[in-house]
Amino acid sequence: MSTRRLLVVGAHSADFVWRAAGAVAAHTSAGGEALVVALSYGERGESGELWKQQGQTEENVKRIRHTEATKAAAAVGARFEAFDLGDYPLEVGKESIRRLAELMRDFAPNVVLTHPEKDPFNPDHPVAHAAVARARLLTSGAGVASGFRTAPPSEFLAFEPHQPELCGFVPTVYVDITAVFDKKVEAMGHMAAQQYLKEYYTQRAEQRGNHARKVTGNAEIRQAEAFHRLLPNVVSAL
Amino acid sequence: MSTRRLLVVGAHSADFVWRAAGAVAAHTSAGGEALVVALSYGERGESGELWKQQGQTEENVKRIRHTEATKAAAAVGARFEAFDLGDYPLEVGKESIRRLAELMRDFAPNVVLTHPEKDPFNPDHPVAHAAVARARLLTSGAGVASGFRTAPPSEFLAFEPHQPELCGFVPTVYVDITAVFDKKVEAMGHMAAQQYLKEYYTQRAEQRGNHARKVTGNAEIRQAEAFHRLLPNVVSAL
Amino acid sequence: MSTRRLLVVGAHSADFVWRAAGAVAAHTSAGGEALVVALSYGERGESGELWKQQGQTEENVKRIRHTEATKAAAAVGARFEAFDLGDYPLEVGKESIRRLAELMRDFAPNVVLTHPEKDPFNPDHPVAHAAVARARLLTSGAGVASGFRTAPPSEFLAFEPHQPELCGFVPTVYVDITAVFDKKVEAMGHMAAQQYLKEYYTQRAEQRGNHARKVTGNAEIRQAEAFHRLLPNVVSAL
Amino acid sequence: MSTRRLLVVGAHSADFVWRAAGAVAAHTSAGGEALVVALSYGERGESGELWKQQGQTEENVKRIRHTEATKAAAAVGARFEAFDLGDYPLEVGKESIRRLAELMRDFAPNVVLTHPEKDPFNPDHPVAHAAVARARLLTSGAGVASGFRTAPPSEFLAFEPHQPELCGFVPTVYVDITAVFDKKVEAMGHMAAQQYLKEYYTQRAEQRGNHARKVTGNAEIRQAEAFHRLLPNVVSAL
Amino acid sequence: MSTRRLLVVGAHSADFVWRAAGAVAAHTSAGGEALVVALSYGERGESGELWKQQGQTEENVKRIRHTEATKAAAAVGARFEAFDLGDYPLEVGKESIRRLAELMRDFAPNVVLTHPEKDPFNPDHPVAHAAVARARLLTSGAGVASGFRTAPPSEFLAFEPHQPELCGFVPTVYVDITAVFDKKVEAMGHMAAQQYLKEYYTQRAEQRGNHARKVTGNAEIRQAEAFHRLLPNVVSAL
Amino acid sequence: MSTRRLLVVGAHSADFVWRAAGAVAAHTSAGGEALVVALSYGERGESGELWKQQGQTEENVKRIRHTEATKAAAAVGARFEAFDLGDYPLEVGKESIRRLAELMRDFAPNVVLTHPEKDPFNPDHPVAHAAVARARLLTSGAGVASGFRTAPPSEFLAFEPHQPELCGFVPTVYVDITAVFDKKVEAMGHMAAQQYLKEYYTQRAEQRGNHARKVTGNAEIRQAEAFHRLLPNVVSAL
Repeated sequence: MSTRRLLVVGAHSADFVWRAAGAVAAHTSAGGEALVVALSYGERGESGELWKQQGQTEENVKRIRHTEATKAAAAVGARFEAFDLGDYPLEVGKESIRRLAELMRDFAPNVVLTHPEKDPFNPDHPVAHAAVARARLLTSGAGVASGFRTAPPSEFLAFEPHQPELCGFVPTVYVDITAVFDKKVEAMGHMAAQQYLKEYYTQRAEQRGNHARKVTGNAEIRQAEAFHRLLPNVVSAL
Repeated sequence: MSTRRLLVVGAHSADFVWRAAGAVAAHTSAGGEALVVALSYGERGESGELWKQQGQTEENVKRIRHTEATKAAAAVGARFEAFDLGDYPLEVGKESIRRLAELMRDFAPNVVLTHPEKDPFNPDHPVAHAAVARARLLTSGAGVASGFRTAPPSEFLAFEPHQPELCGFVPTVYVDITAVFDKKVEAMGHMAAQQYLKEYYTQRAEQRGNHARKVTGNAEIRQAEAFHRLLPNVVSAL
Repeated sequence: MSTRRLLVVGAHSADFVWRAAGAVAAHTSAGGEALVVALSYGERGESGELWKQQGQTEENVKRIRHTEATKAAAAVGARFEAFDLGDYPLEVGKESIRRLAELMRDFAPNVVLTHPEKDPFNPDHPVAHAAVARARLLTSGAGVASGFRTAPPSEFLAFEPHQPELCGFVPTVYVDITAVFDKKVEAMGHMAAQQYLKEYYTQRAEQRGNHARKVTGNAEIRQAEAFHRLLPNVVSAL
Repeated sequence: MSTRRLLVVGAHSADFVWRAAGAVAAHTSAGGEALVVALSYGERGESGELWKQQGQTEENVKRIRHTEATKAAAAVGARFEAFDLGDYPLEVGKESIRRLAELMRDFAPNVVLTHPEKDPFNPDHPVAHAAVARARLLTSGAGVASGFRTAPPSEFLAFEPHQPELCGFVPTVYVDITAVFDKKVEAMGHMAAQQYLKEYYTQRAEQRGNHARKVTGNAEIRQAEAFHRLLPNVVSAL
Repeated sequence: MSTRRLLVVGAHSADFVWRAAGAVAAHTSAGGEALVVALSYGERGESGELWKQQGQTEENVKRIRHTEATKAAAAVGARFEAFDLGDYPLEVGKESIRRLAELMRDFAPNVVLTHPEKDPFNPDHPVAHAAVARARLLTSGAGVASGFRTAPPSEFLAFEPHQPELCGFVPTVYVDITAVFDKKVEAMGHMAAQQYLKEYYTQRAEQRGNHARKVTGNAEIRQAEAFHRLLPNVVSAL
Repeated sequence: MSTRRLLVVGAHSADFVWRAAGAVAAHTSAGGEALVVALSYGERGESGELWKQQGQTEENVKRIRHTEATKAAAAVGARFEAFDLGDYPLEVGKESIRRLAELMRDFAPNVVLTHPEKDPFNPDHPVAHAAVARARLLTSGAGVASGFRTAPPSEFLAFEPHQPELCGFVPTVYVDITAVFDKKVEAMGHMAAQQYLKEYYTQRAEQRGNHARKVTGNAEIRQAEAFHRLLPNVVSAL
């Protein structure tokens, strides 16, 4: 029974669904706790379908996105929290970084997942990465005794971006999500405004499953998600 | 109780001691099986102390190196096997690659450790890497049904070279060897011809222990070894 | 009406189908000429389905693979030629490099496609890359007057490997294959021994189509193939 | 007859002349439209000759630089527009990024050229790159329906910096400017305050012409400019 | 007798001691002048030992850190100056960059040492790097006549971070500090609050000494420090 | 008065002239000794002008190339030695590597210059690099006592290739050749068969001179050559 805590931070409220919902489900299925933080709702840049409705307002778009993300998080056993900082462009000021660091000190995650450092197709993803990386370091201090409250350093990984090779993303670990894939499908089903991505990321999970089979020779794996470890982890044996 | 099999391949008979003896000991202590293969004895390039003895012969140097390596391997619970291909320069012809692939098909390792691809300070280490990488691929085939006998793909990691930054070596996983460090010390003690390295690699293990503490916040770690995963691994949860 | 000549060189007879059949079809549809060279038939490493048939022989596997590849090439308007050098491992000796260079001098391709330099999942792909790169340079000489027959330097690109991020593959150009995708589907249909790849690469073409749409904003693109230019090209305007 | 639109954005008013005037001339000669934006006049860092005149004022330096850049742009068929944000250091605030994004939405460029991301010899060039990259992404949105006005994504390339290897600049496309080189010479002639660069960049154009000849075998090319594509482009055939 | 001036800029007051005190001592022993600037005292992140004292105040921590750093600098023949900008997080605003550039114009260093650009274990080190790089460029201008006071460009190197491979640090020059190592030991002795680092960096100096011996074959070298040149230097002969 | 020994190894007899003749002249002018080794005469790939003469033979081309290179070497104070291994393709077998290592043990160079590891425009340059790198390691052994004769490790640098960015060449040191540039001009004058390169490399020396001025602020520098250190060097002070 895992007692590990997993924190996923996305620039927009739906990011975690496409990129990490399977890993979240695997984590919570094993008994772990998971928290999803969205720095914005993606209300301007990623909610075009909603804006096609006549009389649509920003507040209403956010409300819908909040509900969808909360349901999607619940489907994979996680809580959802929104910082509502605005998107396109997302800006994360000092105060928000401090808030994120406080949240990290309270939640004390064992693992933190977020966007890669680089994404030439999205102005908000690298901003989110930088904020999470900075908050994470302010959380843990220099690894020596500090003059402020700290939480232990967490494992730190990037989840898969949309065009991985152009974001410097190199898979270093695949999570086998075969056993929980139905939960990811359910989570994706809640993102009504972006249903065109559901097929895309279903296929992607199968392709990563194919890769994970090739890496292991384990024919049981059907779906997987890819992650890029940004820091070494420590193990008791290989 | 682990049932995993670990294969370590070095260019010279002592390489595994300085770079991976701790990981071997951690592996066998957990119940796993370990096999060390040395492509050469390092009889020309790394046995200078022995050559200072009057009347020394190559055959005698090899005999001494074989005995030392066998004892060192035993100290960490591993078997030792030598290919005796000669060093400075080491050359690994097709037949030797085929022999190594056959050995891999028989042993079916879960994990393979060897030198990094690049080492601007040693002519034999990159040759060993290339041979192991090639034999490993010939062992497992393309990950689809093949017209020849195969073994499942193994995890593949490089152990730490002497000047890591100049070999493109980036630690991606630290193995905590605190509990088995006495065994590594014993193994190092068997390499009589290279005792000047014992202090060096004792200090190195402590520095990597320091790094592993910083990465985890776990103050219990005293010694560690660093490895560079060359391929993604697959896990059931992060 | 294009008068350009395209040369595709694969390690195994089916490689061009999954990775470049769309680009070949686009090229020949525009009037260009295309030649596919397979350095081996992939008779050992990639023909497992065929080996399941009782009494199968290597000669028969090669004959089947030759027929399939010839049909697949024809489906996209290309000729097929096999060097039959053997696979797993593929080895390309000096004489074969000379033969390939002679073929390049005769065919004088404007564009050459082959595997990327690196592929940690396949022992033959990097061997094929190195042979093609070397033959290509021996074909064109140093770009100055030479003491031997030459052909002008060709554009040189890598086609997409199976796990692109782990092969250092970065897409630098997408070819829109929407208009000729039915031909690629037909070509894939001819590779009877590897039908499990047909769905995989159909999905991949759609995903690359998605990427090409995002790069251009052109909603008409449905399928694409990704390539990595290994050398600059020259244009008359951007 | 091209109907494409080309946008060149430089940190200082003269940058486009040395680095891209040939490509601009090739573009407009083919019927395309070109717009040059200078974020500053380079009045402090790159106008030393002007400051040698007694009684010189910043306003006068800017006026001279504006006139020169307008003439140089006209020589290659382009319009010139200045943001006048100051140099050494150039700072591009949110409002200026918004203004640049608005300009991009209005002009809807097919191609955007600017400085590379890195330049260890100039504090303003990377700032300009970051501003252009950000404005470009805010212009086009996420490639899906958005809650704001967008323009289609543009091709995005870096022009050549002064010490290319130290800026991570790798040529991926050469533009043959032989036919329009007289126009680049004329444009360079208008930058009276930096005439020492005219010979330097004339030689550079010839060297890049030499490179383009070697890449193609086309002996007709005399002068060229080098560019680094930052994102894949999409073509209908190779 | 050297007349060169060396400037070392650290994020925290103790950084220069562990990473560059030997190079400073070698420099001043040869007759050169050295100035150490600390952007902060590291009063929050790196003074945990001091905070264990009851009733400790930030002002007192800073006072102690100032005294320690001044003594350590003196031990290696350097002056110490503190900007006192605060740590965890360190922020270097425009005004501080201007102040640093003014200091550089006044001191006109031949060599500048600071942190590498990247450090995934410390939020302040990259901030310090960026500030120094920017101030350095504003100091020297574009290498042409400028409209403001300048100092000649300095050599620019990064000193060794704690986990070098993970910071992109690659040694490009080793400074032999054997003759002045006692001074580095004395300097380290003054950092009372971080005595646990003294053994670590003594061992590190010996390991770098080992590396410098291997690079040169010079058995006299016992201790060394590693640096990464960020820009080419100019020599009159190799 | 320098007593250092410089070894330059080129794939073809003229390589050292364009790429390193200035550094050789600077070295010998300071009193050092220099030896140039050409692995081949470049008789096939780089002697096209000579082949235009009716009745030309390979032996005659080699004789002319030998004379030219000997004169060019003499012009910069160096001896010239040819291995005559053939070009396009150059192949360096074990015996030739052993011969080169023996030459290195005899000459005991302080500095070795050769081609970079990669050159996508020339099949022979990377072969030469690999041979030199290997011979150099076999010369010096592992930096510990060895069972064979050794010479101390040399500094190891790549000289500038024709299209540097595409060869992974990054200048890390510029040699100021202003004082000896007339000697390089004379050396270039001796390469009658490649006079079209004389202007190219004269301009290149001036551009590198410009870069060296920008790096130092030293207006006296007129010409320079760029080199890429492949291994750290050791200094007594920065």
